[in-house]
Amino acid sequence: MIIHISQNSSENQIDEITQFVESMGLNVHRSNGSNRIILGLTGDVSKIDINTLKKYNIVEDVYRITAPYKKANREFHETDSVIDIGGGVKVGGGHFLMCAGPCSVENETDTIELAKQLKDAGANSLRGGAFKPRTSPYSFQGLGVEGLRILNEAKKETGLPIVSELMGTDHLDTFVDMVDVIQIGARNMQNFDLLKAVGQTDKPVLLKRGMSATIEEWLMSAEYILAGGNKNVIFCERGIRTFEDATRNTLDIQAVPVVQKESHLPIVIDPSHAAGIRYVIPSMAKSAVMSGANGLQIEVHQNPEKAWSDGQQSLTPEEFKNLMETIKILLKIEGKTL
Amino acid sequence: MIIHISQNSSENQIDEITQFVESMGLNVHRSNGSNRIILGLTGDVSKIDINTLKKYNIVEDVYRITAPYKKANREFHETDSVIDIGGGVKVGGGHFLMCAGPCSVENETDTIELAKQLKDAGANSLRGGAFKPRTSPYSFQGLGVEGLRILNEAKKETGLPIVSELMGTDHLDTFVDMVDVIQIGARNMQNFDLLKAVGQTDKPVLLKRGMSATIEEWLMSAEYILAGGNKNVIFCERGIRTFEDATRNTLDIQAVPVVQKESHLPIVIDPSHAAGIRYVIPSMAKSAVMSGANGLQIEVHQNPEKAWSDGQQSLTPEEFKNLMETIKILLKIEGKTL
Amino acid sequence: MIIHISQNSSENQIDEITQFVESMGLNVHRSNGSNRIILGLTGDVSKIDINTLKKYNIVEDVYRITAPYKKANREFHETDSVIDIGGGVKVGGGHFLMCAGPCSVENETDTIELAKQLKDAGANSLRGGAFKPRTSPYSFQGLGVEGLRILNEAKKETGLPIVSELMGTDHLDTFVDMVDVIQIGARNMQNFDLLKAVGQTDKPVLLKRGMSATIEEWLMSAEYILAGGNKNVIFCERGIRTFEDATRNTLDIQAVPVVQKESHLPIVIDPSHAAGIRYVIPSMAKSAVMSGANGLQIEVHQNPEKAWSDGQQSLTPEEFKNLMETIKILLKIEGKTL
Amino acid sequence: MIIHISQNSSENQIDEITQFVESMGLNVHRSNGSNRIILGLTGDVSKIDINTLKKYNIVEDVYRITAPYKKANREFHETDSVIDIGGGVKVGGGHFLMCAGPCSVENETDTIELAKQLKDAGANSLRGGAFKPRTSPYSFQGLGVEGLRILNEAKKETGLPIVSELMGTDHLDTFVDMVDVIQIGARNMQNFDLLKAVGQTDKPVLLKRGMSATIEEWLMSAEYILAGGNKNVIFCERGIRTFEDATRNTLDIQAVPVVQKESHLPIVIDPSHAAGIRYVIPSMAKSAVMSGANGLQIEVHQNPEKAWSDGQQSLTPEEFKNLMETIKILLKIEGKTL
Repeated sequence: MIIHISQNSSENQIDEITQFVESMGLNVHRSNGSNRIILGLTGDVSKIDINTLKKYNIVEDVYRITAPYKKANREFHETDSVIDIGGGVKVGGGHFLMCAGPCSVENETDTIELAKQLKDAGANSLRGGAFKPRTSPYSFQGLGVEGLRILNEAKKETGLPIVSELMGTDHLDTFVDMVDVIQIGARNMQNFDLLKAVGQTDKPVLLKRGMSATIEEWLMSAEYILAGGNKNVIFCERGIRTFEDATRNTLDIQAVPVVQKESHLPIVIDPSHAAGIRYVIPSMAKSAVMSGANGLQIEVHQNPEKAWSDGQQSLTPEEFKNLMETIKILLKIEGKTL
Repeated sequence: MIIHISQNSSENQIDEITQFVESMGLNVHRSNGSNRIILGLTGDVSKIDINTLKKYNIVEDVYRITAPYKKANREFHETDSVIDIGGGVKVGGGHFLMCAGPCSVENETDTIELAKQLKDAGANSLRGGAFKPRTSPYSFQGLGVEGLRILNEAKKETGLPIVSELMGTDHLDTFVDMVDVIQIGARNMQNFDLLKAVGQTDKPVLLKRGMSATIEEWLMSAEYILAGGNKNVIFCERGIRTFEDATRNTLDIQAVPVVQKESHLPIVIDPSHAAGIRYVIPSMAKSAVMSGANGLQIEVHQNPEKAWSDGQQSLTPEEFKNLMETIKILLKIEGKTL
Repeated sequence: MIIHISQNSSENQIDEITQFVESMGLNVHRSNGSNRIILGLTGDVSKIDINTLKKYNIVEDVYRITAPYKKANREFHETDSVIDIGGGVKVGGGHFLMCAGPCSVENETDTIELAKQLKDAGANSLRGGAFKPRTSPYSFQGLGVEGLRILNEAKKETGLPIVSELMGTDHLDTFVDMVDVIQIGARNMQNFDLLKAVGQTDKPVLLKRGMSATIEEWLMSAEYILAGGNKNVIFCERGIRTFEDATRNTLDIQAVPVVQKESHLPIVIDPSHAAGIRYVIPSMAKSAVMSGANGLQIEVHQNPEKAWSDGQQSLTPEEFKNLMETIKILLKIEGKTL
Repeated sequence: MIIHISQNSSENQIDEITQFVESMGLNVHRSNGSNRIILGLTGDVSKIDINTLKKYNIVEDVYRITAPYKKANREFHETDSVIDIGGGVKVGGGHFLMCAGPCSVENETDTIELAKQLKDAGANSLRGGAFKPRTSPYSFQGLGVEGLRILNEAKKETGLPIVSELMGTDHLDTFVDMVDVIQIGARNMQNFDLLKAVGQTDKPVLLKRGMSATIEEWLMSAEYILAGGNKNVIFCERGIRTFEDATRNTLDIQAVPVVQKESHLPIVIDPSHAAGIRYVIPSMAKSAVMSGANGLQIEVHQNPEKAWSDGQQSLTPEEFKNLMETIKILLKIEGKTL
């Protein structure tokens, strides 16, 4: 970490900062330029919040050289993390997560039927919303625990591990019992109470990127989970909010190589929520594979025109099956397996 | 609500949509253009999610004409809502909220001393963080309930009502007992479980705008609280995330006239979090008053260089006092009272 | 186009709008909802600027149903446009543009040598900057006409058609003589005088997307060129500006399926400017092919560490060659040819 | 400028960078941390483009400590620049620019009549569009030189200096003859050929901020003009593009204190283009004065419902007059004069 001190500072003021930094167990190296003073900090600077340095009047700016995340940082964990989500399915390194399913779970018959079709087409996990975060209080809010029960029936039939979203700490125990991967939604990416709570479990967590979260903030949210002892974090890019409104969000596909450089944890792409429109999804799913992503999460519904939510961005089982044909070829090129 | 149907649609497909819409108690008016078919929907369309219409293949686009919020909507509540936060302080209409205090509560002596200075300068409420949402798990997370106790000591001494942030449902009862206004932070603006929970109380809620929330989404989050029966919502604009990084966030000051046109609820401005730099705050606070805002929330610390958090964006009591001199003059021009 | 009239409007006010619209040769269809009046406009609405309707006090909002671009619109030109850029190279439909070269042309020897390597690896056109748009007036501004001369020497040796950026109307004639494709840079995407000028020629134009341009605005800029009579427009997505700063820009890869749905004109991807960092480029180039893009533009330099500009985002000839191995395989899957 | 070198670098690689930097007349100070090497650069670093350093493989990151603009930088020019635009009107320091007028000049009678009303209400300069940058080639493009002639007739009658937009270098001489302030529009903020051309004149330039330009880029565009010898640059903030679409753009009012800290040049606010809706403008104009801005530019039209462009964001002369009553009071508080 580098502190740029303004030129009219007194030695007393500089001493005060130096003592503060040293009191945190760090070393300070000072260099005097012609008209700038620079303090270089060494030691474990991950504990230091940049703003605790910016509060000093004589500090012009602070530059972070070491990333503020440690446990998520590839620098201290060079090999790819591989996360076992059960049912023989792994994610990370050469293991590709192909997660598909309806936005909301609606009923048992359709869910089981769909799960079978998805498995046949090549999916290795089943997503389904039971508790739904909806912009409007007047929209359908999900079947709740009944939805989780239905997903477990589908799991019994197909063996597919289950991914479902947890919205608050109240239902944490139920989720630990009933799902294989706890999904944290984009709107809760910085719900720190929730992150701490799932960090206390050892359940794999699919951490969606917040709509306006930088990649660094996203890694810091993973750090909350890792700091609690849970090492099983999977990132999921699902589009960020920009000025462009031709699509629901802007898919930040460059996040794949960036996250993989910065972290050892796997990253998957959700093209359904990024696009918000059906026709955009297949080409983006194929792009995602070639970006080097460790998986995909795609919404599929037997009859999108009848879906209770997100029908506009759901593929049919037929469309999903066709897409999987090409994806399997691309995975071979990439040296990855389902 | 207006539905634009693609030109190659069959009558069967159009009938299907028509029946779906009518099944929700709405009326459908069809008009055939030269090469476009338009369906106009009338009745209580606030229940309809645009996406439940977009899922039909023949729907090209859907335009919402009536806002999706009802209880927050000025159309159905023409006069300004005035919210009583206790201690004789009201917010809304001609009543101005002048809320100030430290980012984090640190200790009793300083907090009480500061509260006295703020009251003398003209503040009519006291903010202070007890539970802190921090980007890093390694940063100071707040004093917790002890922080709320200290704020109550300051209230005893000064009479200033207390504003503090609630981060999860676990502490709701404590907050109902110990604070006058529950603050919902930007990162939790779409934590729907939390919104529903505070909606079950009648405690005033200061609802901060999410970093990437549109004004419409913000009003919908208020709608969650109002739908639960709690009418006491105060909006707080604190900067949105944009490409500009000279300041921490971009203060969307235009949100003031827009929210006041769309809603009857009051809106206050937090220039501290928008700027993230001390020198920007005073001019923005004055701008906020002339924008027509119903209040301000400003971070003040006795010694910003010693603050445990957000020192870089805190005014000194002296700077706050000077600022209040001008603000009092501006409030007279605006016809508002503290 | 649909106009939403506010409910308290007088018949006189509605008549005034109706007459204005009819005076432009359009038809108006009125429908009265319970508490809303809607005017539907039919005819050639592409001429109407939404704001010329919003200026009326009684207009609540205006929704455009037909896109404002006509000549760029796929609705009136169903098949893909294929653009011949010379040297036997076509772009669009199944024809893939593989354009590579240095950010800035530096000298004749290196440029010719590099052009040969690129051609051998599979490139079918040569990019090179002669006039450079630089943020700072103190940065290298390009070799100017001498740069174009050098590019032509490379063309003589390799047959590769030349793509180079034109920054103002002053050098238009020179560019018409000396390049095969005129590139309009992101910063000039709405330099309407320049768009009109290139629209008067029949030279192919590579139109980069402005950093904050919506897809609709981009298509409207193409419309300026097409309206002048020049049908040879190629879109180039090179990243948009968002809050994320881990990469120089955010590559909006979803723009590929969206532009291809809205327009018959080809779209290529420039991953170099989107990323601004070397290691991100190869995976994004492969993603671009699978997104369905009609081409790529990639910066390559013999020794990026010695490049006069953009070395940080240039591949070496070796890296480019390796990348092309995979790209050729992917093009087969996509059914496209170089 | 500080260069962060990756830890596995060879001495040869470091020497190469050191020699490159020294060849530009700069000094290099090296400090070795426990696992980081830092190079500090001193001397005139404004000439160095960060990317010419990032191109080296061993460079992890580069931090700029001195701003890249010199002539626009307050560090080297402490007092406020005051710019004389003629007709006894100055801008900067305590001198406030109150510029008003129609979006487009439409005819002589109305323009002269309006100019008189604006002057009576307190305006000290007249804006009017003669050459119009329009998103659509099918929209009204302005009266051209005839518009400038009409503005000069209004100037003869009122003495108000004229502000009008120049879109390309072709008409530069005409503008030097016929206007008092050359406006560079947002879309041309990085049209570097145009910036260089106006830099060769001594005519005051009103430089609008690009829709997605950072404040630093904006200052660099001013630097282009200043580097040519023209010292008379006035910044104009007119809203930036963000995800929020309730208003046309987001007014970045914080840019006022930031620009005034970084630069000695004046900054004015254009609330009309930021809002894009009439009702938002008056409160934002008042906010702008209290932000410390050095002026305002507001669109006014005798009959906005009949305006040929931008009627939706134009005030009536009556509304402008009422607004000026309050603005005059606020200017006294701010210690500024018209």
